Formats: sequence, C-alpha cells, structure tokens
Amino acid sequence: MRGVIMYAPGDVRVEDRQDPTIIEQTDAIIRLTASCICGSDLWPYRGIEPVDHTPMGHEYVGIVEQIGADVTTVKVGDFVVGSFVASDNTCEICQAGYQSRCVHNVMMGAIGTQAELARIPLADGTLVATPGLPDPSLVPSLLAASDVLGTGWFAAVAAEAGPGKTVVVVGDGAVGLSAILAAKQLGAERIIAMSRHADRQALAREFGATDIVEERGDEGVARIKQLTNGLGAHSVVEAVGTQQSMEQAIKSTRPGGHLGYVGVTYEVELNGLDLFFSGIHLHGGPAPVRRFLPHLIQLIWDRTIDPGKVFDLTLPLENAAEGYRAMDERRATKVLLTF
Amino acid sequence: MRGVIMYAPGDVRVEDRQDPTIIEQTDAIIRLTASCICGSDLWPYRGIEPVDHTPMGHEYVGIVEQIGADVTTVKVGDFVVGSFVASDNTCEICQAGYQSRCVHNVMMGAIGTQAELARIPLADGTLVATPGLPDPSLVPSLLAASDVLGTGWFAAVAAEAGPGKTVVVVGDGAVGLSAILAAKQLGAERIIAMSRHADRQALAREFGATDIVEERGDEGVARIKQLTNGLGAHSVVEAVGTQQSMEQAIKSTRPGGHLGYVGVTYEVELNGLDLFFSGIHLHGGPAPVRRFLPHLIQLIWDRTIDPGKVFDLTLPLENAAEGYRAMDERRATKVLLTF
Repeated sequence: MRGVIMYAPGDVRVEDRQDPTIIEQTDAIIRLTASCICGSDLWPYRGIEPVDHTPMGHEYVGIVEQIGADVTTVKVGDFVVGSFVASDNTCEICQAGYQSRCVHNVMMGAIGTQAELARIPLADGTLVATPGLPDPSLVPSLLAASDVLGTGWFAAVAAEAGPGKTVVVVGDGAVGLSAILAAKQLGAERIIAMSRHADRQALAREFGATDIVEERGDEGVARIKQLTNGLGAHSVVEAVGTQQSMEQAIKSTRPGGHLGYVGVTYEVELNGLDLFFSGIHLHGGPAPVRRFLPHLIQLIWDRTIDPGKVFDLTLPLENAAEGYRAMDERRATKVLLTF
Repeated sequence: MRGVIMYAPGDVRVEDRQDPTIIEQTDAIIRLTASCICGSDLWPYRGIEPVDHTPMGHEYVGIVEQIGADVTTVKVGDFVVGSFVASDNTCEICQAGYQSRCVHNVMMGAIGTQAELARIPLADGTLVATPGLPDPSLVPSLLAASDVLGTGWFAAVAAEAGPGKTVVVVGDGAVGLSAILAAKQLGAERIIAMSRHADRQALAREFGATDIVEERGDEGVARIKQLTNGLGAHSVVEAVGTQQSMEQAIKSTRPGGHLGYVGVTYEVELNGLDLFFSGIHLHGGPAPVRRFLPHLIQLIWDRTIDPGKVFDLTLPLENAAEGYRAMDERRATKVLLTF
C-alpha cells in the first residue's frame, strides 16, 4: 500500500509500505476513504518533536476490510469512524469517559493512517459504524469527527459551554473552529472567536460565533473583559497551546469559570500563584473523542452540523508533501487527503 | 483595644490598637470571642511575604457590637461567623458561589482580626449568625469554619469527593485534616491521608481517613497507585502548596479525576505538558468559604462534626508571639487565641 513517511523534519514522502495484517484478534483492518493532516503533525515537521522515518497520520474513516476473531461490533463492509487513540472502551477509565487514557490505549500516530490501509487495534472499543455507507459529501465531516471535531467538542464540554454562557475560543485553527460549532450546539448564548484571519472569521461566524476579537495577549484579555461586564467569560476554550495563548485563556476566564484546553502545551509553564488566584476550573488534555463519536456521527448524518468545512485544501495522498507545506506556511487550515 | 502587630518577619507583638469604627454604612463592628493563627500567617513570619508593622489575623467569630445604617441581616448581640474575605454576596461572581472573588471583596487580612474588636465590611454579605449564643464548647469549631474548615470543605468539593470515590488528601495541617472531615461528610468511600505525624494521623482517622500513607513524592504516588488498582485516585486534595506536593497531587489523580488545590502555590511552576497528559480536572484558589458557612454552622450546631479539634494549642491573645513560634516550629498544628 501507499503511505506517508516523514523521513526527517520537513521531509515528507509517499512510499510503498507493507500492507497491515491482523496481529491481535481484537484488530480490524480498514481501507481508508480519506485521511488528513493534523496541526500536531507539524510538530515533528518543524523539529519540535523527534521524527525519523516515521509513518504519519492518526485520523481516519474507511471501510472495514478484515476483522480479528474477537471483533463483534463492526463487520466487514461497515463504514467506520475512529479516534486518534484506540481504546477498549470497557476499562474503568474508558467507562468514566476518558477513552483517550484507556489503560490499554494505543496511539494511532504510532500506526500511521495517512495510508491506504490501517490496522485498528481494539476495534470493538475504538470504531463506530455509521448507519450506512455515507454520501460522499459527508465524508469530510465524518473524518473531522475523528479528531478535530471531537477535540473541539471535548474542549467546549470541558469549558462547560451551555445555555446562558459566554464562551471565548482562543485559536482559530480547525480545532478552535470546531469548538465554536460545539459551543453553538451545546446552547451557548454568546460565542466570542479570537481570530485575525478574514476567512477563518467567516467560518467562525458560520459555525456560530457571535463576536470576533482580533486583539491578542493582554489587549485581547482587556477586550474580553470589556465584553463581559469586567468579569471575564464563563467558559474559555484554548486551542493553540503556547505560553501566550494559555495565559490569555486563563486571564479571560472569570473566577469560578471553566477553561477547556486542548492545544498541546509544549514549552508551557503555568505560574502556580497566577493560577491559584484565577480561581478557575482547568480541564483538558488529549480529547476522549470516542466518548462523543456516536453523537457526533448522528449530528453529521442528520446534516445538523457540517464540520467538514474546516478542510480548505483537498489533495491526493501522493501529494501529501504539498499538504504539509501548505499547513506549515498557513496557506491551509486543514488538508484532506484522498485516495 | 489589644491586637497583634507583626513588626517584621519573626517579630510579633501585642499592642494597643485604635478601636475600629463604622466607616461604611454596610459595616459591622464585632467583639471577638476567639481568633486564631493561620498557616498563611507564617508566610510573612518567615519572610516569604512582605510585612512591616502589619495588623494580623483574618479568622474570627464574635458578637455584633455595632452595625451601620444599611445592615439588615445581623443585629447587635448576634453571634456571627464570617470568612477571611468580606463579600457582598449579591454580585454575579458571589451568586455563582465564588464569594472569595466578589467584585467588591475586602481581604480581612488587611483589617487584622487577631484583636479584641474588628470592623467587618459588607456585613450583610459576609456574616452568618448562629441560631443563638453558642455553648463555649462550640466556639473552636465555629472559628474553624471561618477559614480552615471552609477551605478544606471547598477543596473536597473541588475534588468532587463523594459516594463511590477514593479521595487522597495531601497535607496534614488544619486544612488537610478539615478536608478529610469534609470528604467523609460528602460520602467518600475511601479517604487516604498522606501524613507522617502520629498525632495528625490519629486525628485524620478520627475525622474519617480509612488509610494512611507516609511516603512522599514519587514513592507516595506509587503507593497511591498501588492502592487504586494502578489508576490513581478519583479525587485529590492538595493542602500544602509546594512544588513537590502539587506534583505529587497531580500524579496521584487518575485521568479524568479531580484535583482540588487550596495550598497557596507560592513558587510553584506547573509543567504544561505534564498537566496536559495528566488529563485531570484542576480547581482551587482562595476558598469561597461564605458559600458553605450556613451548612457548616448547622453541622457544628448539631454536633455532627467537631472541626475545632484541629486546634491543639490555646493561648491568650497576649501570648500570640508564642503561638506563632509554636506553629513555625511545628509544635502546634493550629493555635486558638482567647480574650
């Protein structure tokens, strides 16, 4: 099969890889309908995370081609969506809704789903079948559910977005935009998107943002305070992961408010005393996308939401290197790879 | 009146201070029945926080001696308990239960309640009257409600202690011990106290601890994992505020679990990536004691709880300096000052 290999930072190639096979009887093999490039794939691309001839990709939708003897909840021919972390969905941590931290979790990034085929461990606990074969127009949205939508949704839930709440979203990438969509679905009264890019502002508004704030850092915080009677927002989503964006998010949250953070906090140090006196709730980490998948698939299937709009560049798998470049140079928000 | 003044780190004196008077018509003047020394009073005592001829104390119970024209909920002669932060209890932040961050908050530490009399700002929003004049045996417990019990209670609530939960309490000072009492009242199934002092272990067990762990740091974490099927606790209370104790508390919490932290995090830096991958909920800060006061007073009045046991040394106000020394040298957990 063909698949993406990152040889080194900045060096992405599409090559022949060995077809995956069933290793454990709980595995499934899927043929991917589409895959995509994640913002987090840019960390090794930019040399922030080590990389050495590494198969890439952890988002996927596709059709089950083969199942192990112990797989019972999906069958050959099913169209399935899974998360970027394989989980048994039965352990105590999974049952509490934290499938991304399943005691048997397997990071799909170690498998590499920017490829024609992929082995999905713990298929019963990981994959969710759609009600039938989806219309091709639904595929981008179902793929978004695999990571960015699920992550943005988790962030909005962690921030306790809901009726009567003012929600601030820091970060206008695919995850931040998905969090806006989630906050809207969760019934938030007001959704403030922090964005300086006209095209992303437009999609933010389409997804449900009621206000746009272009200022950043302390100026951004001051603007949020101005919009919230001096108190800060009830709910804030952090979907960037830098020192500045985390501090901005913390300061934008009112005392007793909730901050949901899903931007991976590389090189972030939180000052304990600032956090203490903020009086906020902080929750985040790798999103337990599996918790939300059945609901998200239904919303997409019913065409209630269209998260696939976060993809603004579609390329064939063979052109993956150009996709990485486009995202690295911010010419694209998120790249869909087709087969 | 007589009152405690800290001239400089380590230099505590009891001197004549001017009697307080009504300044705002929302003020009340109370005559203190008892006051006490707080673990946080040791910060200036040890030179960690600046201090210069500062009146000390922020915990208090007493009898209302005078009220401003606008005070309606307490009257002269009432026995009252208040928190270490005066609050209007009507603003949006108070109404959400975060009275310690009231938009009109006044820190009682700026007033100094280790004194015979004290002016209580925002009396209607701050003071809670007991059902009648308390039996003297109840006074220590009512005083504990003013800060350490209220703070420990908030920590246990922030940690979501409750039925079916395993709760770890890091810190065996008056706040940690109060958090154990709170976790027990909140219905926790198992309460693990981290303590190496025999007398505090005994009180921890009396307050509801089911297990004692003496190990600290990574060894302490390993022991907690061992006791929780490798997962970590559902709920962890941090009541110390050092780098080591915060890290120990974070690592002792299972993914998706809740950490309530009330130890003031001077000189603590939290590594963003460690926090991210912990997947925990983090909530804490200055406890909104006022939220819990009516309930806590009732529990004390009914003799359901006896948090006054955290006081292990009682001294007349005039001997306050010895009380500071005893706490600084860890000869006492918490010192009650009488008049």
